[in-house]
Amino acid sequence: MTDLPQSLPQAWRPPMGWNSWDSYGTTLTEDELLANARFMAEHLKNAGWDTLVIDIDWYDPTARAHGYNDNAPLILDEYGRQLPDPVRFPSAAGGKGFGPLAAAVHELGLKLGMHMMRGIPRIAVDKNLPVYGTNYTAKDVADLDHVCKWNPDNYGLNQSHPGAQAWYDAQLDLFASWGLDFLKVDDMQTPFHSDEIAAYHRAIAKAEAKYGRSIDLSLSPGGWVATSYVDFLRENAQMWRISDDLWDRWEDIYQQFARLARWAPFQTTGHWADADMVPFGHIGLRAERGDDRQSRLTLDEQKTLLALWCMGRSPLMVGGDLPTSNSDAIALLQNPALREVLAGSTNNRETVRERIFGKWWDESTYRGEFIVWSADAADWADGTRSAHHGGHYAALFWTGSDTYEIGRNIQLQSIVGLDARNDDWTLSDLYADAPGESADVRLEGVGADRVITGTIPPHGVLWVALDRR
Amino acid sequence: MTDLPQSLPQAWRPPMGWNSWDSYGTTLTEDELLANARFMAEHLKNAGWDTLVIDIDWYDPTARAHGYNDNAPLILDEYGRQLPDPVRFPSAAGGKGFGPLAAAVHELGLKLGMHMMRGIPRIAVDKNLPVYGTNYTAKDVADLDHVCKWNPDNYGLNQSHPGAQAWYDAQLDLFASWGLDFLKVDDMQTPFHSDEIAAYHRAIAKAEAKYGRSIDLSLSPGGWVATSYVDFLRENAQMWRISDDLWDRWEDIYQQFARLARWAPFQTTGHWADADMVPFGHIGLRAERGDDRQSRLTLDEQKTLLALWCMGRSPLMVGGDLPTSNSDAIALLQNPALREVLAGSTNNRETVRERIFGKWWDESTYRGEFIVWSADAADWADGTRSAHHGGHYAALFWTGSDTYEIGRNIQLQSIVGLDARNDDWTLSDLYADAPGESADVRLEGVGADRVITGTIPPHGVLWVALDRR
Amino acid sequence: MTDLPQSLPQAWRPPMGWNSWDSYGTTLTEDELLANARFMAEHLKNAGWDTLVIDIDWYDPTARAHGYNDNAPLILDEYGRQLPDPVRFPSAAGGKGFGPLAAAVHELGLKLGMHMMRGIPRIAVDKNLPVYGTNYTAKDVADLDHVCKWNPDNYGLNQSHPGAQAWYDAQLDLFASWGLDFLKVDDMQTPFHSDEIAAYHRAIAKAEAKYGRSIDLSLSPGGWVATSYVDFLRENAQMWRISDDLWDRWEDIYQQFARLARWAPFQTTGHWADADMVPFGHIGLRAERGDDRQSRLTLDEQKTLLALWCMGRSPLMVGGDLPTSNSDAIALLQNPALREVLAGSTNNRETVRERIFGKWWDESTYRGEFIVWSADAADWADGTRSAHHGGHYAALFWTGSDTYEIGRNIQLQSIVGLDARNDDWTLSDLYADAPGESADVRLEGVGADRVITGTIPPHGVLWVALDRR
Amino acid sequence: MTDLPQSLPQAWRPPMGWNSWDSYGTTLTEDELLANARFMAEHLKNAGWDTLVIDIDWYDPTARAHGYNDNAPLILDEYGRQLPDPVRFPSAAGGKGFGPLAAAVHELGLKLGMHMMRGIPRIAVDKNLPVYGTNYTAKDVADLDHVCKWNPDNYGLNQSHPGAQAWYDAQLDLFASWGLDFLKVDDMQTPFHSDEIAAYHRAIAKAEAKYGRSIDLSLSPGGWVATSYVDFLRENAQMWRISDDLWDRWEDIYQQFARLARWAPFQTTGHWADADMVPFGHIGLRAERGDDRQSRLTLDEQKTLLALWCMGRSPLMVGGDLPTSNSDAIALLQNPALREVLAGSTNNRETVRERIFGKWWDESTYRGEFIVWSADAADWADGTRSAHHGGHYAALFWTGSDTYEIGRNIQLQSIVGLDARNDDWTLSDLYADAPGESADVRLEGVGADRVITGTIPPHGVLWVALDRR
Repeated sequence: MTDLPQSLPQAWRPPMGWNSWDSYGTTLTEDELLANARFMAEHLKNAGWDTLVIDIDWYDPTARAHGYNDNAPLILDEYGRQLPDPVRFPSAAGGKGFGPLAAAVHELGLKLGMHMMRGIPRIAVDKNLPVYGTNYTAKDVADLDHVCKWNPDNYGLNQSHPGAQAWYDAQLDLFASWGLDFLKVDDMQTPFHSDEIAAYHRAIAKAEAKYGRSIDLSLSPGGWVATSYVDFLRENAQMWRISDDLWDRWEDIYQQFARLARWAPFQTTGHWADADMVPFGHIGLRAERGDDRQSRLTLDEQKTLLALWCMGRSPLMVGGDLPTSNSDAIALLQNPALREVLAGSTNNRETVRERIFGKWWDESTYRGEFIVWSADAADWADGTRSAHHGGHYAALFWTGSDTYEIGRNIQLQSIVGLDARNDDWTLSDLYADAPGESADVRLEGVGADRVITGTIPPHGVLWVALDRR
Repeated sequence: MTDLPQSLPQAWRPPMGWNSWDSYGTTLTEDELLANARFMAEHLKNAGWDTLVIDIDWYDPTARAHGYNDNAPLILDEYGRQLPDPVRFPSAAGGKGFGPLAAAVHELGLKLGMHMMRGIPRIAVDKNLPVYGTNYTAKDVADLDHVCKWNPDNYGLNQSHPGAQAWYDAQLDLFASWGLDFLKVDDMQTPFHSDEIAAYHRAIAKAEAKYGRSIDLSLSPGGWVATSYVDFLRENAQMWRISDDLWDRWEDIYQQFARLARWAPFQTTGHWADADMVPFGHIGLRAERGDDRQSRLTLDEQKTLLALWCMGRSPLMVGGDLPTSNSDAIALLQNPALREVLAGSTNNRETVRERIFGKWWDESTYRGEFIVWSADAADWADGTRSAHHGGHYAALFWTGSDTYEIGRNIQLQSIVGLDARNDDWTLSDLYADAPGESADVRLEGVGADRVITGTIPPHGVLWVALDRR
Repeated sequence: MTDLPQSLPQAWRPPMGWNSWDSYGTTLTEDELLANARFMAEHLKNAGWDTLVIDIDWYDPTARAHGYNDNAPLILDEYGRQLPDPVRFPSAAGGKGFGPLAAAVHELGLKLGMHMMRGIPRIAVDKNLPVYGTNYTAKDVADLDHVCKWNPDNYGLNQSHPGAQAWYDAQLDLFASWGLDFLKVDDMQTPFHSDEIAAYHRAIAKAEAKYGRSIDLSLSPGGWVATSYVDFLRENAQMWRISDDLWDRWEDIYQQFARLARWAPFQTTGHWADADMVPFGHIGLRAERGDDRQSRLTLDEQKTLLALWCMGRSPLMVGGDLPTSNSDAIALLQNPALREVLAGSTNNRETVRERIFGKWWDESTYRGEFIVWSADAADWADGTRSAHHGGHYAALFWTGSDTYEIGRNIQLQSIVGLDARNDDWTLSDLYADAPGESADVRLEGVGADRVITGTIPPHGVLWVALDRR
Repeated sequence: MTDLPQSLPQAWRPPMGWNSWDSYGTTLTEDELLANARFMAEHLKNAGWDTLVIDIDWYDPTARAHGYNDNAPLILDEYGRQLPDPVRFPSAAGGKGFGPLAAAVHELGLKLGMHMMRGIPRIAVDKNLPVYGTNYTAKDVADLDHVCKWNPDNYGLNQSHPGAQAWYDAQLDLFASWGLDFLKVDDMQTPFHSDEIAAYHRAIAKAEAKYGRSIDLSLSPGGWVATSYVDFLRENAQMWRISDDLWDRWEDIYQQFARLARWAPFQTTGHWADADMVPFGHIGLRAERGDDRQSRLTLDEQKTLLALWCMGRSPLMVGGDLPTSNSDAIALLQNPALREVLAGSTNNRETVRERIFGKWWDESTYRGEFIVWSADAADWADGTRSAHHGGHYAALFWTGSDTYEIGRNIQLQSIVGLDARNDDWTLSDLYADAPGESADVRLEGVGADRVITGTIPPHGVLWVALDRR
């Protein structure tokens, strides 16, 4: 049987999708996007993946790997609004924008998103194009003092000028008319541009009301974004990055432990802190960082990333070109535990983070950190898929490059509460069906003395559900 | 397009269903249940209604309207577990219990629930039947000192005896084997039986794990249940009553204002305070209170009940016999705003409650109370149905028996926040398509001075959405 | 021994003081204030009372009972800032303002506050006086469209003009130079003037920094103030009214039950919702409402008011002329439980509110409401005064005009938690030493069945502490 | 003037005291304690320090530095309860316990605490002494399976035996009769002994009620204590350790950053997560770890410890022998900012934690972590001491061993909120009067672009208050 609602609140769980950045950088084509969409519909949609995002510079006909172009001849309409490069996106020819592409993606039961820079195109300012629906021009509203430091496409907007809001309104009106479901807006948070964010959100709200559809707003990038902004971010966006760009190296994953621990208490339905890309599978085809490769992350590091993102309730945006990614990566993404924990865990938090030494009192023998996350499990309306009823989730991570024996320090009651002793509990491995070696993890002991124990591989995780027998 | 998940957390929104108590009391038959199920599937399922609950004494072959029977010859199995009366529920013949009926309801895409009393049948104790799976007998586990004060079927359970848990485990094992989705368990909260509730929850958790399905636990009744119990209730149940039985009279609805205001801050996904039945349409066919009738609540009182329950995020359980209920009642239940607000509102709370007098300083001229609730609106993934994006909901109630002119006291910013002045806002009537007269409600003024104003009918409500233009 | 800190966070507990409004209206004199201050120092300071507030129109030489004067010849300095009427406040002569009076009050170990209206004196505008420290004039900054509806002294301020902030800065600079500790600012919340409140708060912050002292800001009045404003109010004020003026009649106290229940979850250190005056003792000497009298509230109503205000953590501002108030009123104010509960209770909330009928199902027999509040008790550093360690407080109110037998519905565990059964508990009457009859309240039963029971007098309360034996 | 209350809630702010462990280990004498008490009264009491704690084994006449003694001839009374070694504590002679010493400390206006081990002395069990007030004996209540792993004094207690509670009751009755104010109880949390903690708390509550005084309960040690236990810990203790023992090395301080960040959101009045000792000044005289020395922490590391503990609202327990400690250590402890922030900050949290590299994308150039904490400042009733009104606190830490230039990444608005632009703000150094070099920290820029910038020394901190001008 089924309990499917006809509709759900927007971003009711952290979004799960694909983004072109890690594989195609600024150069994605329509064919490549559609190939990924078809692969998702066939192989990943059942596991919860449902969105595809076209990253930066889809309006630059000179886009290339490894960098941005000064003075690029951006494709704009008569009001300075960006249009897709018709060479890369043939369906956009004739001013149709991403409308035909969105329709094709919707046809597959999926959602389409795209990237946008804060501000107004420099070309629109140089040509002093009119701001749609107003008597202002691009020069009136541009702010030449607050421009992006790393991308040369745009100037800033002078938010004290009434035409600045009108510019964003006009942009969003066009984008929403194409039927987009998701917008990733860049250069918003470092430094933190609160006026820009609020103005963008207002423009989206108006476009949503006009076109009767919802559009997720994703803010980027997130270097050093303080948790102090959380109320403001919740009011204005569906998700916001909490770090700079993440790539396929352990250091980048390691850094997310502290950030997700800081943000986890603030994750609420509809509004999510975002730990960035999942750089799995075939990446670097024509990307910003590195060359064509399968992800350099080990299988254990990939399991760690997914378990940490899910326990921290971060959105998941895969970067690898799906049709040409290795089968292990695809198998990891098909794990139903991802959606289950993203959607149905509460009270998620880091409960232990300890530095481990080979020899006590000798700092030179530092081995790594042992980190525990726990969460409560929601029950599920569809009993056929999951046996995790009224239980809990735990992830036990090890950041060292050797293996780690847990010992007897993690009492079951520290995960499931003080009534651990009153019930029989079972432990099940959430990576039981995943590629790679079986996990060594188990429950031992009785009553209040019961512990979770086992061995964690290098940069690895034991990810388990704990249920009443 | 669609964003339908294959599964969702249990009770991710307050349940919406039908319960036999108001129409059939203790006497419901299989045919009557199925008639209501078919009606729900055809006319109400699209609006979010999906559960049917068989109320008390389905195991009593002598059940009748207006009261309970001492020494009734309850139908029990050899372990004392209740079985449906095969006369009223022919499909249960041959020891099949509610299995066939559950299958028939599931076939309609709906869920089946039933009622149970705390404790163990007196007959099982008198006969000293064995407790399934143990060497104990019913006499070992019964508690003759803590029996229900209003229903004579059962004794209590001695929770310090190990067989007490075994009894509940055995019961739930049987019920879950039938495929039930929902259990309403009675005499749990007045007085508050914490050991019983925890034991029942443990039994359900075990049955859920064994049968791979989830079962919502609804606790009843709720007279004087203190909010102090909220953590315990969340740990153990999906919903819990917060009042004694509610019937079709204004006084009963009026009393729920204070209770829902007290509980609203504690409503969280998966765990809901329950303001009891929605006594609309054709009730009293063979019920506990009153005779065969269409609900005595006026249309405005019915609108008030639904708006209050939704703004307070209470489960909705309709009591009227659906196929024979009046069309106005059915039309009210079909309003898509019910599910929209139940599922997608946050930060729900009473913000104003004021006693109004005809003449200032003269208590003898008391007219009624003016009460305001507000909530934030989630955005929606399915833009085809709702235009309420990033907005807010407000309900303005009037408990007096004359009409009430709101005046200029309800500033828009008290609902939507201090940026009320920065945006254009629209107001839309959530009862615009409902039966009855159009609501007189509107926005007036500009900026921080903007107010919501209008006229509220006797015992009525103005229920609106406020959205950015 | 002692644990006295040299300083504490501002408004670390709800303020306790005296305000001239109920006894002297607009007409208070210096001698009257000092008589109240001396009485407080001698008889009430030990119980926590420490502030005296001069209410409205201390700058109007024509002030009188029962009303305000149009075109009153307000005493202003050359910049339009109000100065005390030197006839009523001789120490203010020579432009010394309330400096000498503040010094005299400080000498007694007490604090001095005064009242102020939002906006700028009409006289200052008519004369177009300069705004101190600027090149603007009163006409530049006045807003003639947003004037107080009930007091004719002032115009509003145009908050979009830069001189508006300068006006408040200048006012506060003068007031702070006098050494004031407390400001009650009126006409701020009905309608809600967020810009005015923020501007006033900024002016206070600057004055505090300049003069190195703190000034409590109290906002008034509070008719229909929505809880939605709570974050803004916390950011800007120490206390804010949540109702219109309260006088010595039961109806006014009765109305505060719903308001305090709504606000109680939001009470946090430093920022308090304020249920208004405590109209006890000798009031109406030359006041706004009614004639010279001892408070018309019965002794039980007075006990109800104090218990409700304390359980709701409202500031206490006594209105009666202290030296000439009846001894019962003074004895009630001397109860050490007031400060104990105001300062050291947490998790304060209404847990039960039930309408009681003489005959079930018969609305014509409505008797009143039975209302329960509970809170956790902090332990105390000074063991000599209080025996309430790690316990709880409960107040059981009855709004009917007959007496109410509680019966057995209030389980101890609903106040102290589920371990009620594991401990021996004692109940002590917080009004044990108060005037009036001894309370009839006790613990009965054992374990989870233990209940609080007793009889509540008309409009009365049973107020108790519950401690582990 | 003054606003001093006669009493305050217990542990209304994190305790500030001295503990003998770092300097005297198990061997403290009465003379040494009194010397420290006199020094505190004279030099530190004004800054908020008010408690002295005698650490472990005060009942062992054979106590020595560097370890514990098996089979030590503990001094016990006839019921097995520990008594002070009368050689080291002459005033305890004649069975007077710590009564005379407590009186002497109280005479100085200070509080006395002591250490206790979980369980019951092995000697009491070997001799099978009676449990005071019961017919049980020590053998009845002992649990030989759950004994401390590192100290041989005691056996565990069998908490399912009724005499176990009686044993703790008897112990606490004796200790409370001496007039103690503080108890540090050891071996409670690793592994987590919830039954022991609850039993100990019950015993304290009974003793508090009997003797009319309050006793702070401090739980220890805290290795790997999960935040999941927070509700339980709040219910039962005033403070609880969150790490193993901390000594005077950078590694130990460094580890506390992650732990305090995890616990900071849970710090509430009366109940504090404890980051352990402040090992400043003259330590190791006869201690567990290391030899006689002045603290090996650098001055900057000491400033970092104090700023982190205060921003995280951890109790402060100094370990150095005060009379013989170096003047820099004493000067740091006299800083009024310690008490100010401990007592009057709210919303304390880590907002940024970033790993810094010398060369981007090159992990081998890792330099250290840049960590920011912020908090809101309470206003203060005693304006003579502090100019921090309605402001904020920020601490900017650097864990690297070189110096760190902050750059322009820390926007003022990330500390003080989005109205940073509307006010003039001042920055003041909370270590302005401390020993060592002046801090290089300042505000730069205007409006939303304003940043905090400066240079942080190795392992150092910039600790500032931000106030409206």
